[in-house]
Amino acid sequence: MPEKRPIITLTTDFGESDYFVPAMKGAIYSVNPAVEIVDLTHQIPAHDIYAAAFTLMCCYKDFPKNTIHLVVVDPGVGSARRPILVMTDDYNFVGPDNGVFSYIYQRTNVNRVVHFTTEHYFRQPVSTTFHGRDVFAPCAAYVSRLVDWRMMGEEVGDPVRFNTPTPVVVSEKQIRGTVIHVDRFGNLITNITPAELKEELIGAGARVRIGTHEATRLLTHFAEANPNELFAYFGSTGFLEVAIPRQSAARVIEARRGIEVEVDVP
Amino acid sequence: MPEKRPIITLTTDFGESDYFVPAMKGAIYSVNPAVEIVDLTHQIPAHDIYAAAFTLMCCYKDFPKNTIHLVVVDPGVGSARRPILVMTDDYNFVGPDNGVFSYIYQRTNVNRVVHFTTEHYFRQPVSTTFHGRDVFAPCAAYVSRLVDWRMMGEEVGDPVRFNTPTPVVVSEKQIRGTVIHVDRFGNLITNITPAELKEELIGAGARVRIGTHEATRLLTHFAEANPNELFAYFGSTGFLEVAIPRQSAARVIEARRGIEVEVDVP
Amino acid sequence: MPEKRPIITLTTDFGESDYFVPAMKGAIYSVNPAVEIVDLTHQIPAHDIYAAAFTLMCCYKDFPKNTIHLVVVDPGVGSARRPILVMTDDYNFVGPDNGVFSYIYQRTNVNRVVHFTTEHYFRQPVSTTFHGRDVFAPCAAYVSRLVDWRMMGEEVGDPVRFNTPTPVVVSEKQIRGTVIHVDRFGNLITNITPAELKEELIGAGARVRIGTHEATRLLTHFAEANPNELFAYFGSTGFLEVAIPRQSAARVIEARRGIEVEVDVP
Repeated sequence: MPEKRPIITLTTDFGESDYFVPAMKGAIYSVNPAVEIVDLTHQIPAHDIYAAAFTLMCCYKDFPKNTIHLVVVDPGVGSARRPILVMTDDYNFVGPDNGVFSYIYQRTNVNRVVHFTTEHYFRQPVSTTFHGRDVFAPCAAYVSRLVDWRMMGEEVGDPVRFNTPTPVVVSEKQIRGTVIHVDRFGNLITNITPAELKEELIGAGARVRIGTHEATRLLTHFAEANPNELFAYFGSTGFLEVAIPRQSAARVIEARRGIEVEVDVP
Repeated sequence: MPEKRPIITLTTDFGESDYFVPAMKGAIYSVNPAVEIVDLTHQIPAHDIYAAAFTLMCCYKDFPKNTIHLVVVDPGVGSARRPILVMTDDYNFVGPDNGVFSYIYQRTNVNRVVHFTTEHYFRQPVSTTFHGRDVFAPCAAYVSRLVDWRMMGEEVGDPVRFNTPTPVVVSEKQIRGTVIHVDRFGNLITNITPAELKEELIGAGARVRIGTHEATRLLTHFAEANPNELFAYFGSTGFLEVAIPRQSAARVIEARRGIEVEVDVP
Repeated sequence: MPEKRPIITLTTDFGESDYFVPAMKGAIYSVNPAVEIVDLTHQIPAHDIYAAAFTLMCCYKDFPKNTIHLVVVDPGVGSARRPILVMTDDYNFVGPDNGVFSYIYQRTNVNRVVHFTTEHYFRQPVSTTFHGRDVFAPCAAYVSRLVDWRMMGEEVGDPVRFNTPTPVVVSEKQIRGTVIHVDRFGNLITNITPAELKEELIGAGARVRIGTHEATRLLTHFAEANPNELFAYFGSTGFLEVAIPRQSAARVIEARRGIEVEVDVP
């Protein structure tokens, strides 16, 4: 069987119609031609650090250990924001220090955050507007070649992080949460997990209010829902989600990220 | 020269903006890091089994022998529909048993259809909404590792298939068919092939009626068509297609999948 | 470390929803299963040779030496336009002879242009409408297998090229140029480089007129611009660009490719 190759995933807001993504890939292969590059997504809404952080959180652990997750959603390019490497037990993360790794800090044991300062590892000359190609891509590629982090920069102790909204457990049977993401199908993903709302309550008559609308059933399967029914379920992300079969719940009930959600179990 | 690696292609309706596709890729690499993953497309319209079946039919044979074609267009996820492996002489197919392999059954010698039942080969825990990641991706990856199908499930004899419309040959010079696909350029792909309408009749004055419109020439090359001309030709898929140079025929004549087509040769 | 594999990049106007791109990839792997295929982009506007030429120019040099850049934007498919191989010191280019390599001819030392004429290297039968799969993909794959160009075709001396607009240097402090590309963020890329407008003039009060609008500052960084400010900067492509922070300058000032630009330094 062929050898295992190191994996670098890419998450950006560059889209796929410009030269940005292939320029980054070329820069990576120029440093390490043996790497495997996997697109996570390039469809993050422009400058939306929150969407990038959510998407990364949902799948970074599905990759083999030692995968390098490279994120370039970087509204502060050209400013003083630091390019960083986040080292955890199983994965490395490379990207701007703007909060995009907040969920990683929250959920994983972080061993070290390194500020890339050694310009030797940058593509020269470094442009002021495209650090994806000139800083992040080559640095991630050198990490994949197992260059020691001490060569590449300095440990820092204060990475930028944003606060992710946390659900309020009013009682075991009343929880208030927030929609933290809307996926492509218009399904609404909340921040409520089985830690706050026990999965055993599925079938117990829970009602989920979003704005002026209500999902009156918490189901196990999509297939149990009726046509046009707004219903709730624990999704593949581990979060409570609200959806309508084959329709966009976001459009139908005019909901979006940030809207409040209340669960009541009778 | 480097070694040949097993290929897995991916066809889904997940789009490329969410975590669904990379989660599947991560799940595949976690089982077989030496595989080559090739995106067939992730732009299948949501739940459109027919479009997925058509797209797969058009290019599965362009891949090297032993390629594994993984299709996850799965409106019945969470219901009782079976996850299956379709084994043919040259290729393996993995996906839900919902008809998406109908054209394969029609056109190829199928040696065996296997229902994946051995949970050992699933990613645990299996979610109710994302079998792409939890069932199909790891099973396809184990197939690429040459795990014996007898370990993974049981042979079944009754896979689900839909009937593809077949052209009616009224006479050698009159054929009635159907538009079975509209491509991104708005070209209309019918189900009529040289088996029904001889290619030798090109230039013989064939007329192709679609709704109230008519293509009055059957041409060999795009380049022979006049500006704004609705014309017919045998496309790269082997099917009779109807197009307008540099315009969307679908939009101009308001045609879509399912519309009838009649060919008359004088 | 695993072996280096030859790289083929793909640039097309096929989009990612049809079978066109995977059919090309399958055709490549069928000839050379050891190749690394990298999508440059498939979102070139239909038949837009200029956009393809621009996008390729912006990133072809970011790839390792010996990369093969395959471009299939081919409005003349089926006509007499030639399929060609362009050999330069560091890269090979494969595509239709329709001007799509004009910037390569302008900027690089071209050692040889070869017309692919040996049908042995084509996928048979060659369709009239899909040379991407039947001619260009297999030819590029044979090039990646180091087949001698003399086996594959004949040298030609007159490849098709379009004239790229060149800036007019009225004086060191007055330059007239053209918008040659609009990127996904709506940033306007001109054909003016530091060869015409010295970067040292940044901060000297240069004004950039586009139509009836004016950028009154030439900045070093995006981050220096004010909200809603139309400003100019030298972008990551090496060209003078005009943008508005976090907005589409193209939309706000209604500018597009071909519009004139005048720079005046006081």
